[in-house]
Amino acid sequence: MRFEVLILGSSSATPIYGRHPTAQLINANEQLYLVDCGEGTQLQLAKYGIKGNRIKHIFISHLHGDHYLGLIGLISSMHLVGRKDELFLYGPPALKEIIDLHFVHSQTVLRYPLRFRATQDQEEEVILETDMLRVSSFPLDHRIPCTGFRFDEKQRLPSIDKEKAAALGIPGAYLPLIKRGHDYSAPDGTVYRWQDLTIGPPAPRSYAYCSDTVRTDRYLPHIQHVDLLYHEATFLHDMVERALDTYHTTALQAGQVAELVGAKKLLIGHYSARYKDLKPLLDESRTVFDATQLALEGNWYNI
Amino acid sequence: MRFEVLILGSSSATPIYGRHPTAQLINANEQLYLVDCGEGTQLQLAKYGIKGNRIKHIFISHLHGDHYLGLIGLISSMHLVGRKDELFLYGPPALKEIIDLHFVHSQTVLRYPLRFRATQDQEEEVILETDMLRVSSFPLDHRIPCTGFRFDEKQRLPSIDKEKAAALGIPGAYLPLIKRGHDYSAPDGTVYRWQDLTIGPPAPRSYAYCSDTVRTDRYLPHIQHVDLLYHEATFLHDMVERALDTYHTTALQAGQVAELVGAKKLLIGHYSARYKDLKPLLDESRTVFDATQLALEGNWYNI
Repeated sequence: MRFEVLILGSSSATPIYGRHPTAQLINANEQLYLVDCGEGTQLQLAKYGIKGNRIKHIFISHLHGDHYLGLIGLISSMHLVGRKDELFLYGPPALKEIIDLHFVHSQTVLRYPLRFRATQDQEEEVILETDMLRVSSFPLDHRIPCTGFRFDEKQRLPSIDKEKAAALGIPGAYLPLIKRGHDYSAPDGTVYRWQDLTIGPPAPRSYAYCSDTVRTDRYLPHIQHVDLLYHEATFLHDMVERALDTYHTTALQAGQVAELVGAKKLLIGHYSARYKDLKPLLDESRTVFDATQLALEGNWYNI
Repeated sequence: MRFEVLILGSSSATPIYGRHPTAQLINANEQLYLVDCGEGTQLQLAKYGIKGNRIKHIFISHLHGDHYLGLIGLISSMHLVGRKDELFLYGPPALKEIIDLHFVHSQTVLRYPLRFRATQDQEEEVILETDMLRVSSFPLDHRIPCTGFRFDEKQRLPSIDKEKAAALGIPGAYLPLIKRGHDYSAPDGTVYRWQDLTIGPPAPRSYAYCSDTVRTDRYLPHIQHVDLLYHEATFLHDMVERALDTYHTTALQAGQVAELVGAKKLLIGHYSARYKDLKPLLDESRTVFDATQLALEGNWYNI
């Protein structure tokens, strides 16, 4: 199953050097999920060949402009190109108020249902479950209410070991049961354990998105053992005071967080406009967490 | 005096083919005026090497997203890079409400004064006067309240004909009076007419901006005899019914308007997403108004 994230925007509040405000697209088995939607996201989607109307769920972490000012343009364009399918939107309660005010004054009535679910930043909450995926929001510590999002693949059923099944002549009708954990009793009375007749499944993978936050311990329980952790790294650690003042994180802290929570890989982003060259941020994080990568626009990262 | 307009966005509501939503920058003697501010305008300004903080006045024609969704991002970035100078904003009354709602929820207090002046779409009104320029808003006919903007250079004083003044030995103290229309009486009693002692000035130039409008006669009085008319031309004329339905104009109608009002030159833009190739729009307008040009992003046009 494909499970990847495309970086659409990697900049912090002031876009510069061709970098755009924050937005990410998750492809989970060809289902598309947008996470944050900074100004220009619809243009970035077009640039990377993604049709906006393939997106069914949009998650907004908080109401700083660099994380949501592309949203109204995107949902308006979906309307203009004839979307009929429901769109599910998750974000702080006031997001709905902001969207409604725009549509009142632009006299727009969307041709598709926009389903809004308000997030809260007090505790972790499952906000979406599909056959394959569970999405939770969890509190971050930023200047205004802000949540991260965690995407967990659900445990899949194992696959039948087709060679063994054929050798034993197991009737097809039994196979779904075996996949679900029933042992197989052969006509000669031999019992074959389901574990010996199946392969896998691969361990479920997980992705956590920490958009804007100061480094605290409060959000660490929610991002334990993820396969890929995206963590903002607005500053180098020589600016840690500035990071504290503005409720942001340094690259060193991002690496430390990844190490502490036992993440497999770390993706850093949300770069301050003061860094044209991003390598020092990467190097700094790698001093504590080697499996760090830079979030670079247009790149897909495996989860 | 420099008097030019830079196209930052030339697209109608759905940005496509690398075209951006509407925004234009006017440079009048190195004073910068922004007219409309579609999503991504701050990125376009950066692309063309314009520092946002050089802009002192922003004019918003109406509250369809493709004409203002870049505004909050731009004024936020001005704040973040330390702007202290006043910014003057002109637009429909609800624009202020929309901005305020964003800043309440993002908990932003701008570090510079943002002076808002509401426009109205009932009659022409002078909304700004500087030493050199007079800016008026005037009603257009669109689906929601919408104004155009007209930029008129003020009549400048003539220049002294330095050779004549030197030949006659006119004392320097008289020159400012002569420029202002006083004749000169020489010591021998001869009176020299001020017109014969001065050169120019060049005729004042004017630019009118018709953002989104259906073709009516109502706005024609406000755009008479402009040097450069920008007029939307969303559709080709075979789509005139669609233009009427959506309160837009065809390229043919834009050309006809330019001809009717005695404009010197016409710039067309706000292209529908259905036109990848813009030449047919240009050709159609030129069938009635030869001095038509396409608004192309990144190009400066003399007024």
